[in-house]
Amino acid sequence: MPAPVRALTFDVFGTVVDWRGSIIKEGAEWTRSHHIQADWAALADAWRGGYGPSMDLVRTGKLPWMNIDQLHRRILDGLLEKFKISGLSETDKQRLNKVWHRLHPWPDAVAGLTRLKTKHIIATLSNGNVALLTNMAKFGGLPWDVILSAELVKHYKPDPEAYLGACRLLDLPPAEVMMVAAHKNDLRAAARAGLQTAFVARPLERGPGAKMDVSPEPEFTHNTRSFVELAEKLGC
Amino acid sequence: MPAPVRALTFDVFGTVVDWRGSIIKEGAEWTRSHHIQADWAALADAWRGGYGPSMDLVRTGKLPWMNIDQLHRRILDGLLEKFKISGLSETDKQRLNKVWHRLHPWPDAVAGLTRLKTKHIIATLSNGNVALLTNMAKFGGLPWDVILSAELVKHYKPDPEAYLGACRLLDLPPAEVMMVAAHKNDLRAAARAGLQTAFVARPLERGPGAKMDVSPEPEFTHNTRSFVELAEKLGC
Repeated sequence: MPAPVRALTFDVFGTVVDWRGSIIKEGAEWTRSHHIQADWAALADAWRGGYGPSMDLVRTGKLPWMNIDQLHRRILDGLLEKFKISGLSETDKQRLNKVWHRLHPWPDAVAGLTRLKTKHIIATLSNGNVALLTNMAKFGGLPWDVILSAELVKHYKPDPEAYLGACRLLDLPPAEVMMVAAHKNDLRAAARAGLQTAFVARPLERGPGAKMDVSPEPEFTHNTRSFVELAEKLGC
Repeated sequence: MPAPVRALTFDVFGTVVDWRGSIIKEGAEWTRSHHIQADWAALADAWRGGYGPSMDLVRTGKLPWMNIDQLHRRILDGLLEKFKISGLSETDKQRLNKVWHRLHPWPDAVAGLTRLKTKHIIATLSNGNVALLTNMAKFGGLPWDVILSAELVKHYKPDPEAYLGACRLLDLPPAEVMMVAAHKNDLRAAARAGLQTAFVARPLERGPGAKMDVSPEPEFTHNTRSFVELAEKLGC
């Protein structure tokens, strides 16, 4: 019999918000306003593709601690060159880099979170920095009780310190915390740290053509296809 | 001309919630349920009285970092002896210590915060720990965008690091952040760190008989008597 769940901690990029669709959508606006001809889908994929390797440089000590805004900017500067996007001012680049603060929630996210919040603490547990997650919540109407971030413990997921640090800040034993994510490696790392797990399938995270591993796994506490379904499973 | 205010950071104990009235009220329930005859008003005052000196021991390095739950418990253990309150189990003591997680908001707090939230990031900036502030928000319906705490920077207010660390986590220059508090020393320390300031008079914080310094001061950006009045002044 698992312990009662007091808090749900959510992965954010891909699990709560549609980073790819949002970047493509805002990119189209940049094309109109700044006359940038770019394959925004390819740029979004490459930007996100640089994310894990950048964090690994921090996780292995090859880079000093840098938050995600800083890592996103490092990657973006390389991509602007690679994609031959020129003519952006420094202010433009800073604004474009913060597209990650303006990602749109998946259609079920706000409704599901609102239900889950009635019985549980709902928290982010993202590698995104606090300012990014706070601005994103304002932008998308995400009703978090508390913003938790790798930035607060200076350890990126899937380092165990990220999960255990969140539980410590909530003053809850890991067994009473449930990690919610669309990524199996995130959930497996959370489970190793003692948390319960809920998988949420996001088949469109990498676009309509991409193959995603969204099959349920018996090792997870719950397997779901939306936050609303998770709310139903948890009796909210 | 002051910079536009992007975020409001709130002192919590006394400014947002009525710690004294809440402890007296819950104390009366403990008297009924545990047959404890205690002067809860005197206990509340003594408990709060131990708060500043305890934090000073941490601020000056005489105690290692301890969060407010831990400091509250240290003080409580002394007071149970002093007030000759016996017969409480360890579970009872833990529960009583967490009365600070169950403090009631002042009557204007939720309405004012809800209005201020429409145009600004609203954040705690309290010496209370993250779990305490999160539980208190659930208990009282406080609609924070983000929970910021001395615990996250391991410096208690009025250390400048507490204010500057909050601005850093919000990724905002101090001039775009406004500290809101009922305590002038908190606001003066925030101003020295470069923040704007809003004083909110809470004449009943220490009970109906206590003399409080609630006179407006021209040095503060705003002087108000409620969060609703602050919302009006900020055009929310």
